Amino acid sequence: MTIDDLTLELRRFAADRDWERFHTPKNLAISLAVEAGELLEHFQWGTDEEILDRAATPDGGAAVAEELADVLIYLVRLADILGIDLLDAASSKIAANARRYPADEVRGSSAKRAR
Amino acid sequence: MTIDDLTLELRRFAADRDWERFHTPKNLAISLAVEAGELLEHFQWGTDEEILDRAATPDGGAAVAEELADVLIYLVRLADILGIDLLDAASSKIAANARRYPADEVRGSSAKRAR
Amino acid sequence: MTIDDLTLELRRFAADRDWERFHTPKNLAISLAVEAGELLEHFQWGTDEEILDRAATPDGGAAVAEELADVLIYLVRLADILGIDLLDAASSKIAANARRYPADEVRGSSAKRAR
Amino acid sequence: MTIDDLTLELRRFAADRDWERFHTPKNLAISLAVEAGELLEHFQWGTDEEILDRAATPDGGAAVAEELADVLIYLVRLADILGIDLLDAASSKIAANARRYPADEVRGSSAKRAR
Repeated sequence: MTIDDLTLELRRFAADRDWERFHTPKNLAISLAVEAGELLEHFQWGTDEEILDRAATPDGGAAVAEELADVLIYLVRLADILGIDLLDAASSKIAANARRYPADEVRGSSAKRAR
Repeated sequence: MTIDDLTLELRRFAADRDWERFHTPKNLAISLAVEAGELLEHFQWGTDEEILDRAATPDGGAAVAEELADVLIYLVRLADILGIDLLDAASSKIAANARRYPADEVRGSSAKRAR
Repeated sequence: MTIDDLTLELRRFAADRDWERFHTPKNLAISLAVEAGELLEHFQWGTDEEILDRAATPDGGAAVAEELADVLIYLVRLADILGIDLLDAASSKIAANARRYPADEVRGSSAKRAR
Repeated sequence: MTIDDLTLELRRFAADRDWERFHTPKNLAISLAVEAGELLEHFQWGTDEEILDRAATPDGGAAVAEELADVLIYLVRLADILGIDLLDAASSKIAANARRYPADEVRGSSAKRAR
């Protein structure tokens, strides 16, 4: 499975259900934000240790994996609708971040603006 | 470039800057939600037609592509920290959705719960 | 009931349950974003007409009111922790918005940046 | 200034600019989520101590107050459009939470589901 496979599978999934009319950019961006909120809900009150411990259990891991999957699904679908190549975009963004935060300058500095 | 390549590249990016200590699940999930909000901001007031028209211009397309990239970057980094295989998780979720919304039942029905 | 009453009631509610230790700015801002996501979920697939129709029913109205209440509760609690006067802050922001978007200039102009 | 005053002021603000047509439930809920994301961005990488220290400075406090104001403004405007009384809704929700989490049971228990 690759991002391209996933794109095609989601395209077919929507077509088979006649759901393309709901998959507008606005609705898909809403769905992405809703899923990001659901993911965040899993981490709402715990410490990082508690979060990692829970994610290491079968049930806890499956629950979080499902939220990550939902985010990816809407992200891939939205990119498809908008004609954007996700991996290309990520590659360009990493290159821009590397210029903005050169490793040898960032290392050892106070990390106010860390990513 | 694949999701696996991206995972490794982001792992190296964080290590080179000594940023692993900031990349806790909670912080990364916050960043993902922040980026989902920034993406949504692009679509805040426009109609779907306006959104698609703007995304079809070089500048408009690049701006949205950058937000999608940010979401993907934090998503991939978070999945890595949690030891979750994103594409596997998406595949399982699509299978579950297919059982929950059988194409022949959904098609033609009122679309209350459409995805 | 006023915002000040609500502030005091939520302070007491947390104290009675020994929950102050969970009510850090980060956790409360997460909760606020989670609730904003849940609210958005109600409006995810519908048109504005469908959303207004549903909100006008007793059940639909109560469901949305509960999400709005959750957002307000976390907002008020967070403002209290940070020592911020919410109504003062809103008043200042409206004054700033009025300077930024003068009514006689905005009216009739294309509404690209409408708030 | 009360919530009712704020409601009327925002109603007038929108009317004076001919912005009512943009203030649909969907757009306002998007705006609320966008602002919740901007607020979260202020708390993205810091510890709770750092966040509280920064909020205690004039500039840091003003920046966070502005984000809280934006959330309140969209929340109040959305409640107005939907015909929901925010303070009533919050009052009902607190009563429901008090039944769900009785103080004497919660106190001293492990805080898995703390609010």
